[in-house]
Amino acid sequence: MDLGRLVLCRGLCGFTVAVPGAAPRHRGCAGDRAVSLQLLPDVYTSELRAGSLHDVYTSEPRAGSLHDVYTSGGKRDEELVLPINSSLSVTLHQDQLKTTTTAVLSKDFTADRLWLNGQEEDVGQPRLQACLREIRRLARKRRSTRDRDSPPLSLSYKVHVASVNNFPTAAGLASSAAGYACLAYALARVYGVESDLSEVARRGSGRACRSLYGGFVEWQMGQQADGKDSVARQVAPESHWPELRVLILVVSAERKPTGSTAGMRTSVETSPLLRFRAESVVPARMAEMIHCIRERDFPGFAQLTMRDSNQFHATCLDTFPPISYLSDTSRRIMHLVHCFNAHHGQTKVLWQAAYTFDAGPNAVVFTLDDTVAEFVAAVRHSFPPASNADEFLKGLQVGPALLSEELKAALAMEPSPGAIRYVIATQVGPGPQVLDDPHTHLLGPDGLPKLGA
Amino acid sequence: MDLGRLVLCRGLCGFTVAVPGAAPRHRGCAGDRAVSLQLLPDVYTSELRAGSLHDVYTSEPRAGSLHDVYTSGGKRDEELVLPINSSLSVTLHQDQLKTTTTAVLSKDFTADRLWLNGQEEDVGQPRLQACLREIRRLARKRRSTRDRDSPPLSLSYKVHVASVNNFPTAAGLASSAAGYACLAYALARVYGVESDLSEVARRGSGRACRSLYGGFVEWQMGQQADGKDSVARQVAPESHWPELRVLILVVSAERKPTGSTAGMRTSVETSPLLRFRAESVVPARMAEMIHCIRERDFPGFAQLTMRDSNQFHATCLDTFPPISYLSDTSRRIMHLVHCFNAHHGQTKVLWQAAYTFDAGPNAVVFTLDDTVAEFVAAVRHSFPPASNADEFLKGLQVGPALLSEELKAALAMEPSPGAIRYVIATQVGPGPQVLDDPHTHLLGPDGLPKLGA
Repeated sequence: MDLGRLVLCRGLCGFTVAVPGAAPRHRGCAGDRAVSLQLLPDVYTSELRAGSLHDVYTSEPRAGSLHDVYTSGGKRDEELVLPINSSLSVTLHQDQLKTTTTAVLSKDFTADRLWLNGQEEDVGQPRLQACLREIRRLARKRRSTRDRDSPPLSLSYKVHVASVNNFPTAAGLASSAAGYACLAYALARVYGVESDLSEVARRGSGRACRSLYGGFVEWQMGQQADGKDSVARQVAPESHWPELRVLILVVSAERKPTGSTAGMRTSVETSPLLRFRAESVVPARMAEMIHCIRERDFPGFAQLTMRDSNQFHATCLDTFPPISYLSDTSRRIMHLVHCFNAHHGQTKVLWQAAYTFDAGPNAVVFTLDDTVAEFVAAVRHSFPPASNADEFLKGLQVGPALLSEELKAALAMEPSPGAIRYVIATQVGPGPQVLDDPHTHLLGPDGLPKLGA
Repeated sequence: MDLGRLVLCRGLCGFTVAVPGAAPRHRGCAGDRAVSLQLLPDVYTSELRAGSLHDVYTSEPRAGSLHDVYTSGGKRDEELVLPINSSLSVTLHQDQLKTTTTAVLSKDFTADRLWLNGQEEDVGQPRLQACLREIRRLARKRRSTRDRDSPPLSLSYKVHVASVNNFPTAAGLASSAAGYACLAYALARVYGVESDLSEVARRGSGRACRSLYGGFVEWQMGQQADGKDSVARQVAPESHWPELRVLILVVSAERKPTGSTAGMRTSVETSPLLRFRAESVVPARMAEMIHCIRERDFPGFAQLTMRDSNQFHATCLDTFPPISYLSDTSRRIMHLVHCFNAHHGQTKVLWQAAYTFDAGPNAVVFTLDDTVAEFVAAVRHSFPPASNADEFLKGLQVGPALLSEELKAALAMEPSPGAIRYVIATQVGPGPQVLDDPHTHLLGPDGLPKLGA
């Protein structure tokens, strides 16, 4: 679900003008609310992968699967969506990557409905339903005192949700996480729920709980069987490391890799390496990663990021049947980064770029602002755009850079023209942004998608 | 080194006929010996990978690297070539895969020399020298009583070795193992050494020690620091499981994968998963694998084989910098096997084919004789030969088979024309074969390669 921004419109009842050709979808005023938030797909850096383990699962069309919480040793309620290890992510900036979502509640709606990029989707999807149920449950429990003067929204009201991306789809980014986080946040606002939304978002899409914060966010796996302590917290705000740059390398739509018929449940059940990783490797790495971020230690951050990405994919391969997310292009990108770093090892600090891969072949590469131009030049050199070279780089402006002959020699790779479709340059960003401009609404006064939304 | 067969010719001194245009290279009779053996590249099934860990290393142009023996906790003499875990392999039949090697000792040779497929190679290669030194040391220690009537060969004699493959090179098969095993065996015969040749072969190319036996062979890692107990032993002879078939899928020479700049030493140093694997996973798997072989339990054998192949490659990926041997074609082959097995799960026993990958993208697939034809048909279907369809299948005859519509549907993969260059069908084979036919010698009476050798 590509949910990114929910439109907050107080007094939506003002929109009960009848739309020609369609029966008015909502009437009355009090009680109708919609919330708009701007969110973004999140990208997982350290690959301390509870969230991504879970997300790997959600990207597969399987419902109701959950990996066990290893420490408790027991099976968990499949709806709780609890991870087997903690994880950390970096929230990206919405100027480059955002989705817009409008959600409207109305007593006149007869059913929950969902539109993604103009297409109506199945709202019965278990994760969405779990998210809705959870927010409605919280709303019943905890009404905010802020809106005491407004009549309470009936919890039986149905919701319409519409969502659109501002970047090309099929980028393979973590849109579902952003979506559920946004939905959770929006519904919470609408219902006046002010409690920790980690649980709501988490039940929709595990790592979505991290999308509720900007900057650097940790998802603490928690120990309790009921998951109450499995929450997200901000490790450092987006302003903490302004030099950090993030490049998303979107690979060409190659033949679909062998995919993951296994799913993450199977990983936990069949991979000895995964259990060992969760129990013996991740805890220390989490602490180390948090330290690197707080100290702005790029070399440490870079090495940990790459090693953990690789270890995650190693455990996918150790699953039976195996899961393969990395394509040949993914591996060539990894090789490029290692060559780039090794080259710089001669004259400068060794670690200048770091890759990480989620549940797909697209790469996320971290650099500092003083290196990003040279790295983009190296990417162009090894992965020359097949066409439309002007459109190869999107997002933040990145100046041109010349590659030294030494670096070209270090990048001793046969070029792969067109293997990378485009690159999005971005940086660390804030969490959900509430917007009040009604022109940004994706749903019209009738609760249906506006033309072109 | 592609050493496979050394020519045993008693009384080679009979060849002291002068060759026109070349000075006679050896004269006299007593003392000149050459040994011929037929060996074969070996392929590692269970991927219980001490041997292949080591071999991964030897396939890299690095000398003198060795992984620690994990249990002893100390660094080993780099020449001892000791593994961090035990391993098991299946020796293949030389009718399908063999290399021929001739070795000649003569007091008239002025230097050790080596020819591979007609090209002279560097005999100073450390592993070859280690092998030679070891056999000469053993010869000094233990002279066989068999040749008491012959004057002892001087251990200062130099050796000429020539080797040729009977299958196309660049098949990525474990030729170095066969080569060193052959050399060890041959030199031992020449020098009358009858002790366990594990050590000699092992020091040339770790897993070569397994090539000294036919059938199913275990390389016991051993515990001693001096490596004396790191030896190979036969688990079951080649006659034990006559229904077993082995298919070698040679993939096209795709762009070279990112390769392993790291090497196995780096794996041991940087991969937490590898240490865990060696210590906590392999021992039990070895026992289980030996049990499956002895019981001819194909489903058990198959699952273990695939899981261990995957785990090996998982630890390669967990190395830093990472090592990637599997290409996209490799993964499509894995997917094919899983689909093939899942399909059969409806009506027959589930596990009917098993893949394993060594330090390269080529696949080795095990099936039983009642399934091999159907599997080959499935390979042709998903990986149609780009050209020369007649030459696609080499080795043992495999009859045509029709794929059912259900199976075609199960193999729901976009075909990859030409991704597999050819397939070699073979079976379990015996160990070294001594041949006495002088016509098979690759070196002439002058000790130089014959024309066309």
